[in-house]
Amino acid sequence: MSQTQHAATDAQSATAARAAMAAGHLTAVAYLEACLERIAASEGSVRAFAAIDLPAARRAAEAADRQGRPGLLGGIPVGVKDVIETAALMTGHGSPIWAGFRPRGDAASVALMRAGGGYVLGKTVTTEFASRHPGATANPWNLAHTPGGSSQGSAAGVAAGFFPVAFGTQTAGSILRPAAFCGVTGYKPSFGTIHRGGMKVMSENLDTIGAIGRCLADCALLVAAASGRGELPPGPAGSAPRIRVTPGPAAALLSQETRALLADVAARLSAAGATVVDARLPPAVLAAAEAQPIVMSGETAQALAWEFAEAAAQLSPGMRTNLAAGAALAPGVLDAARHMMAMAGAAYLDWMEGSDLVLTAAAPGEAPEGLGWTGDPACNVLWTALHGPCASLPAGFGPKGLPLGIQLVGRLGADAAFLEAAQWVEAKLRWPA
Amino acid sequence: MSQTQHAATDAQSATAARAAMAAGHLTAVAYLEACLERIAASEGSVRAFAAIDLPAARRAAEAADRQGRPGLLGGIPVGVKDVIETAALMTGHGSPIWAGFRPRGDAASVALMRAGGGYVLGKTVTTEFASRHPGATANPWNLAHTPGGSSQGSAAGVAAGFFPVAFGTQTAGSILRPAAFCGVTGYKPSFGTIHRGGMKVMSENLDTIGAIGRCLADCALLVAAASGRGELPPGPAGSAPRIRVTPGPAAALLSQETRALLADVAARLSAAGATVVDARLPPAVLAAAEAQPIVMSGETAQALAWEFAEAAAQLSPGMRTNLAAGAALAPGVLDAARHMMAMAGAAYLDWMEGSDLVLTAAAPGEAPEGLGWTGDPACNVLWTALHGPCASLPAGFGPKGLPLGIQLVGRLGADAAFLEAAQWVEAKLRWPA
Repeated sequence: MSQTQHAATDAQSATAARAAMAAGHLTAVAYLEACLERIAASEGSVRAFAAIDLPAARRAAEAADRQGRPGLLGGIPVGVKDVIETAALMTGHGSPIWAGFRPRGDAASVALMRAGGGYVLGKTVTTEFASRHPGATANPWNLAHTPGGSSQGSAAGVAAGFFPVAFGTQTAGSILRPAAFCGVTGYKPSFGTIHRGGMKVMSENLDTIGAIGRCLADCALLVAAASGRGELPPGPAGSAPRIRVTPGPAAALLSQETRALLADVAARLSAAGATVVDARLPPAVLAAAEAQPIVMSGETAQALAWEFAEAAAQLSPGMRTNLAAGAALAPGVLDAARHMMAMAGAAYLDWMEGSDLVLTAAAPGEAPEGLGWTGDPACNVLWTALHGPCASLPAGFGPKGLPLGIQLVGRLGADAAFLEAAQWVEAKLRWPA
Repeated sequence: MSQTQHAATDAQSATAARAAMAAGHLTAVAYLEACLERIAASEGSVRAFAAIDLPAARRAAEAADRQGRPGLLGGIPVGVKDVIETAALMTGHGSPIWAGFRPRGDAASVALMRAGGGYVLGKTVTTEFASRHPGATANPWNLAHTPGGSSQGSAAGVAAGFFPVAFGTQTAGSILRPAAFCGVTGYKPSFGTIHRGGMKVMSENLDTIGAIGRCLADCALLVAAASGRGELPPGPAGSAPRIRVTPGPAAALLSQETRALLADVAARLSAAGATVVDARLPPAVLAAAEAQPIVMSGETAQALAWEFAEAAAQLSPGMRTNLAAGAALAPGVLDAARHMMAMAGAAYLDWMEGSDLVLTAAAPGEAPEGLGWTGDPACNVLWTALHGPCASLPAGFGPKGLPLGIQLVGRLGADAAFLEAAQWVEAKLRWPA
């Protein structure tokens, strides 16, 4: 491990920890202490946390052990992206305008996670209002590189072994891109799966709460609990999935190594028994990638109308520019973009008939150098706008030794089938091999 | 006017006030003072306000006059339902759990309304979390009767002339029913029209912010401003609309006078030139009325997971029962209900081909006696679940001298056409005649 590498590839997943706890080999307190050791060693460099309360976390772990760790997440520490409200810890939305804000209650997602046995370890750094302007978090694989954004503290914290799983949110590529850059797993469930009450929603028609974790099963555990599902999500599918491969609408932006990775993964999955075909996205589906920036821009300008009116000086210059552009959109343009997005979502469902998954790139390449830019969400925008489930899985390394990820996409509302098929793929990739 | 009647049928609409201000016959301060006089005379009986700050309102009116009252709502005082956050006034969600809560910022809808020239006159009483357990508000037409709910302070306040227009929210019938009971106008725009950031959302797939006002033009002004539209909504249509009349799925609950009203209005509109046909709702559309209670129940239980876990003793007994039932729904049942609702919405759009409006009842009859029950939303549930625009217009009086309303329904996303056609109907009804 290099001087600057803080990625904990050996940290135990939530799923493995739950099994060890059930077998009597592990306590919630011992699991937490292992996380706290990594935090003590690396948080000064990684800066994943916006807020943390160690005594409260220890009390929660002790209580979980005392109570027998009931629920899907019994005894599991969870990171919470700092655009999601928590009663016990401040919620700052990545903006000085909200610095030190103490909500009265927990967001719906956090309350359901806690009702499912998990507990809040800390708030994780977000870019400004989950948009572009970055926080201080560094990539645990190389501190000179961005962890991606906007769910940057969640992705970096999972990679560094600070917690096995965390909440993220995605409007364009804010779960999948940082997960790919940090060599961990991201899962954005179908739009509408997790209630957004108590989240600072930017785009009503795009924002989706999801999970970043050490594996798909960890992500699925958190999403199941946070969506009020008391049941364990399904394991890997028995039968091999039918997969459509496409570089996606951002094909021109993909690095050589990302193109090679995609071809390599397709070949491996085909060799493992999957039906893999190259596919072309029809214009009716690609239209969602044109609509997404308009919907995001117009709706974000509405979401931040108070901040723009009352505290514009505390917004980043880029945000001010974007909000002004969003507010200046003709209403008919925003309406038309919403309609176009909905039509494209329907066209995508038709196009996917007879297939289980899309396989595409999770990001153009490795995490860019520098902490001033969180990278390009161009590989994620289309799929977010189509509203179906997406996941990024770590699948290799680039020339700078940083992780590369692939993206899998399913159908709106069919998350159980998506997770089954995606876990089949994950099992075949088994990374590190 | 009877001893107990506080309805101000002569109060000036926002639209009329704007015209008078533009002509130099009225100032924002003078308009506010007229409202404050009615508040001083009647608020002790009507109890429409959850919070009010008179000096702040006066400062806002003075500032509007100084600045020439720019914007769609320049100089207009607005009531804000107390499930919508305001930085300047506490936001209590109709629950002791949130009593005295001071948000840091304004909700998106409030900030956009203010950016459009309006100002917050006060927070209006809501039932507990915009659900069933009523607040203290009385019906200005007869204080022994409910004003309806959940937007009870907004409806009663408009009827009493406290403000010309107010925000309401609707999950089942929370805008249209109280508007009908109070003899004022309610408008729930298409689902998704107004950003819900900073609103305490119960059902992600149903909750819609809308307006209660003295006429459709007033409601349209507020919705236009709060959805970031700088343009005036259209006036009445030139050509007569094509109208489908149906008692709706709650036909068995309609009072004799409501049935007679519906027939009378249909006859009057037909005589005025509209194409009016009796219509039967197909089962594919009616399915939304079956799905709505499941979606509302399941999603509300998620929304209030924190309150249920941490402060159940401060919830009403009925709310506790409903939340427990919602949380106990099998996830597959909630998923299926959401899907059924979406399919019914699509079937409704097909069914409406060739028509402009549905004409149906806004409520089963007059406002029930007593303040313990806000009445039955059975006439509204289907149309809310179909996601299109709906309005209730005052259209007569019942045997107890209380107002009766009719409901008009349009197509999802076609609010401009809906408002044109609905204003044609409003002009023909012209009430009081």
